[in-house]
Amino acid sequence: MEASIAQLSYALDTFYFLVSGALVMWMAAGFAMLEAGLVRSKSTVEILTKNITLYAVACVMYMLVGYNIMYPGGDYAGAIIPGVSFLLGPDNAVEAVTAGGEDAPYYSTLSDFFFQVVFVATAMSVVSGAVAERMKLWAFLLFAVVMTAVIYPVEGFWKWGGGFLDAAGFLDFAGSGIVHMTGATAALAGVLLLGARKGKYGKDGSINAIPGANLPLATLGTFILWLGWFGFNGGSELKVSDVSEANAVAMVFVNTNMAAAGGTIAALITARILFGKADLTMALNGALAGLVAITAEPLTPTPLLATIVGAIGGILVVFSIITIDKIKVDDPVGAISVHGVVGIWGLLAVTLSNPDSSLTAQLLGIGVIFAWVFVASFVTWLIIKLVMGIRVSEEEEYEGVDIGECGMEAYPEFVNK
Amino acid sequence: MEASIAQLSYALDTFYFLVSGALVMWMAAGFAMLEAGLVRSKSTVEILTKNITLYAVACVMYMLVGYNIMYPGGDYAGAIIPGVSFLLGPDNAVEAVTAGGEDAPYYSTLSDFFFQVVFVATAMSVVSGAVAERMKLWAFLLFAVVMTAVIYPVEGFWKWGGGFLDAAGFLDFAGSGIVHMTGATAALAGVLLLGARKGKYGKDGSINAIPGANLPLATLGTFILWLGWFGFNGGSELKVSDVSEANAVAMVFVNTNMAAAGGTIAALITARILFGKADLTMALNGALAGLVAITAEPLTPTPLLATIVGAIGGILVVFSIITIDKIKVDDPVGAISVHGVVGIWGLLAVTLSNPDSSLTAQLLGIGVIFAWVFVASFVTWLIIKLVMGIRVSEEEEYEGVDIGECGMEAYPEFVNK
Amino acid sequence: MEASIAQLSYALDTFYFLVSGALVMWMAAGFAMLEAGLVRSKSTVEILTKNITLYAVACVMYMLVGYNIMYPGGDYAGAIIPGVSFLLGPDNAVEAVTAGGEDAPYYSTLSDFFFQVVFVATAMSVVSGAVAERMKLWAFLLFAVVMTAVIYPVEGFWKWGGGFLDAAGFLDFAGSGIVHMTGATAALAGVLLLGARKGKYGKDGSINAIPGANLPLATLGTFILWLGWFGFNGGSELKVSDVSEANAVAMVFVNTNMAAAGGTIAALITARILFGKADLTMALNGALAGLVAITAEPLTPTPLLATIVGAIGGILVVFSIITIDKIKVDDPVGAISVHGVVGIWGLLAVTLSNPDSSLTAQLLGIGVIFAWVFVASFVTWLIIKLVMGIRVSEEEEYEGVDIGECGMEAYPEFVNK
Repeated sequence: MEASIAQLSYALDTFYFLVSGALVMWMAAGFAMLEAGLVRSKSTVEILTKNITLYAVACVMYMLVGYNIMYPGGDYAGAIIPGVSFLLGPDNAVEAVTAGGEDAPYYSTLSDFFFQVVFVATAMSVVSGAVAERMKLWAFLLFAVVMTAVIYPVEGFWKWGGGFLDAAGFLDFAGSGIVHMTGATAALAGVLLLGARKGKYGKDGSINAIPGANLPLATLGTFILWLGWFGFNGGSELKVSDVSEANAVAMVFVNTNMAAAGGTIAALITARILFGKADLTMALNGALAGLVAITAEPLTPTPLLATIVGAIGGILVVFSIITIDKIKVDDPVGAISVHGVVGIWGLLAVTLSNPDSSLTAQLLGIGVIFAWVFVASFVTWLIIKLVMGIRVSEEEEYEGVDIGECGMEAYPEFVNK
Repeated sequence: MEASIAQLSYALDTFYFLVSGALVMWMAAGFAMLEAGLVRSKSTVEILTKNITLYAVACVMYMLVGYNIMYPGGDYAGAIIPGVSFLLGPDNAVEAVTAGGEDAPYYSTLSDFFFQVVFVATAMSVVSGAVAERMKLWAFLLFAVVMTAVIYPVEGFWKWGGGFLDAAGFLDFAGSGIVHMTGATAALAGVLLLGARKGKYGKDGSINAIPGANLPLATLGTFILWLGWFGFNGGSELKVSDVSEANAVAMVFVNTNMAAAGGTIAALITARILFGKADLTMALNGALAGLVAITAEPLTPTPLLATIVGAIGGILVVFSIITIDKIKVDDPVGAISVHGVVGIWGLLAVTLSNPDSSLTAQLLGIGVIFAWVFVASFVTWLIIKLVMGIRVSEEEEYEGVDIGECGMEAYPEFVNK
Repeated sequence: MEASIAQLSYALDTFYFLVSGALVMWMAAGFAMLEAGLVRSKSTVEILTKNITLYAVACVMYMLVGYNIMYPGGDYAGAIIPGVSFLLGPDNAVEAVTAGGEDAPYYSTLSDFFFQVVFVATAMSVVSGAVAERMKLWAFLLFAVVMTAVIYPVEGFWKWGGGFLDAAGFLDFAGSGIVHMTGATAALAGVLLLGARKGKYGKDGSINAIPGANLPLATLGTFILWLGWFGFNGGSELKVSDVSEANAVAMVFVNTNMAAAGGTIAALITARILFGKADLTMALNGALAGLVAITAEPLTPTPLLATIVGAIGGILVVFSIITIDKIKVDDPVGAISVHGVVGIWGLLAVTLSNPDSSLTAQLLGIGVIFAWVFVASFVTWLIIKLVMGIRVSEEEEYEGVDIGECGMEAYPEFVNK
């Protein structure tokens, strides 16, 4: 009888993981739509190709290498250098589950893999937007291989795999740092080596806005991400099958939603004050900023505090986007601000509500992750640049990477500019 | 042991609420896409901004005020004037759940809040489409504050919070009246004060069709709403964790699907007969009409009856859209017909299959909700109109509210008209 | 107590069916977006109308007739000719569930109907893309009636309803053959009777590419299908409520995802080698091919083998699309290749990992399903052709079926060609 309850709990927790993972997988569509909506029509096919392919590459590389680096098991507790092995192991036996005890597995290992693998893809999705409209497609995919096989899993191991950041008390519930800031940092390294789009910054010091070609698509992408985030944060509680865990998952859903709401409103009002207009793209970035901000700690705040954490993220993202543009770092979709700057805010905001957190540990985590990801990414981008180049030719960029890289147009019947 | 089963049931019911709530949240994206597809390209950014922001406003206001008005607890059973309190209370303790008995909580309060909050947003989403292309953005958002904090929660309390309509035997399973007709009534009040779009009705009495700019987007929105409705109706059974509840939830899913199918086919055929063409927008409205019609009672009909209830909704919506246009009430997306007229049909159709229903109680509910929402909304719109105005200038409307209100274009590279 | 566990299992399995079914329903939106993105703008409204209406028709016909043909119960075990009855029966009683024993029902019959009905719609969705831009709308819908009431349910009965293909050892986990190849075969019969689009094949033997009007939409459709497929394959395990079933469902999710990833990468690289460009439409078809390929057996392969099965599907689909175009069978969206050719590959690939499979039985199944569906569809199309015609007039086709059939344009403000 106990066995039956243990089995049923196992089934519910596994199903919860799978549903959460499916929602996170859906975020890949969200990034694809968001980015496709925010670039020009001549760069749309290429960004779509990057998005669907990076997801596929992330799945394959994480299965082959990354998952085993990130979760090498108990022998590497507190370590800096993780173990390496290849391919997934077998799933749990009925006996192990029903035996009971502290160490009894309570969900399918494969469902955990499924949940984890979609996280890797999320981190990589952050990158594609920032380097849009000018980076070579195959150079980007080569970077995706390294990022998802090694760079992400190593820092993921340091915290979620039980490595030294975990031992040091660094807290990051669902990955404001481990996923989002990581993606933004890798993007920053790429953008610095890549340079701005032609025409973005005039020789006279002028900054030219380059409007996205399809804002309904960008809005759809934001809604998809908002929905997917319930899986991203909600699934990161890792268990739902008793009263306190179910309450915790519910709290995470509510706080995730409230933070996004707070971010949307705060960014819209901030933009209204600064620009005199209700800037939709800022509202979208505000929603995403709210989501990124709450991701490091969606469990311990009250819903009101979650709203405020999200709202601060929403204000921050507007100023960050303006500032990053002023210093002439060209990030077409604002990914570095949304996921990087606000990711850091989220990691710091953990200390507002979680008594187990410490500012020192959070700063350590931020510093370590940034340093590792930036250096490793920079070196990777640099090697790719030296070997095959990372930027398309000026002609190709002018004509649009869609024709140059993919040989087709996104909207062959529409464009009249 | 009993405790474990109680805990597991609690977890399953909570998870079911959260999944249902996530599906309903997704309906916000559906309304955004539907409305963005049915307006002209020059009004698209603004309608997107309204949609994402009204969702955020609904979440914040319902958390701060609305939820507590709508569910004030037992002291207000049968009342007309609900209590007021602020902010959510704590979630259930393990002891309360496992103690058993009739009153033992069986799901997380926060999961209930999550499910309820996305309903408020749905009611408000109905409004944005009807007032599209000519209403001031900030006036609209101000109305959203009042609607989601007070107008909706008060009538919601009357039925779902245990107020006097509940005591009177009024039945509305998932909100044909409480959510959909409410949204449509608030929209009607706004449209009457706002007037039609310039060029919609000629001085010579002519009625001009203003085609939507992006029908794939409108179709996507309809599919999203259809999917989200499984959460909307399916979650409204409020429990899934035993055989009869699971059967009930399954029946609700089947009937919701069948009603939408019936509505789609009936509206397409009706339009074919009336106009000689297979009018896609009518098929979309037919699907939505089927969904609205079955929402008041998706449990007791057989699947065949559900199909018929939906089909009648689909026929009704075509005639309603034509009629409302003829009396020169300008509703760009047909929201008043889909959610209002068909919402009333849904409330009446309860009597076809539910032996506990009475026509008197249904008519009472329709009358009371309409009267309250119309008067409260009209007064609110009027005050906003007097204080800050609700309509953009003629110039702004001509140029498009996107430039005037949001300072950007939805499709800057495409439009050639 | 046992009763409670049985009830809770029943609830979990029912809920799992409903969530899976909702995901499969979502695939209808995926097909709609995919096809709307891959046709020209002048044929977009019509394909959208077909997609939403075929889904509605499938639901109604399967409820009225199809479900009862496909699952006639034990009396028809091993049969060729299934029984016929009309309308769904009642759901399971609590007593039957809690009585226990081998034959005790463990999930709601209505949840099973919901899951099955969305499969029918999937099979029919495959057809619409292949006949796009030139087939009469009402002829198509008439075919949908026959297909979903009879053609699909009969071959579905042969395997899943316990008919003679099941008895012969034919294996098809979630429908590479029963759903996808079936759709493709019906499409092939229609295309052969219908002929190519005007201008597709020149009199001089030239083959003209006709680019799709909206590739972001096609990409969105692919992501939707990828997501929905977790329900399609994941739900086809039919049970999740114990350790081994939960492990199985998790394995199915992982393998489904990996096969799609493998298909995407393989198709992109194949296209790059053949055409010199990173062809997005081939990457999309590769993802879908990976999904179709793994559908016949997503449980027994390792994730690595699943990736390879998907990758072979991805390579195959590129060559198949080229070949089918060369022999002048005009399939605007590649549906016959993706669902037909790769569906056959999927059925053969079962033998790579499932020890219970035999090549003979798989070949038998392929032959029988193809023969039945092709002949029955051909006859049906032919009768429709003779009675009312299946092809629009040349003028209508030139002007676009949107105006001719639906009386409206998909993008009235955009098109400038």
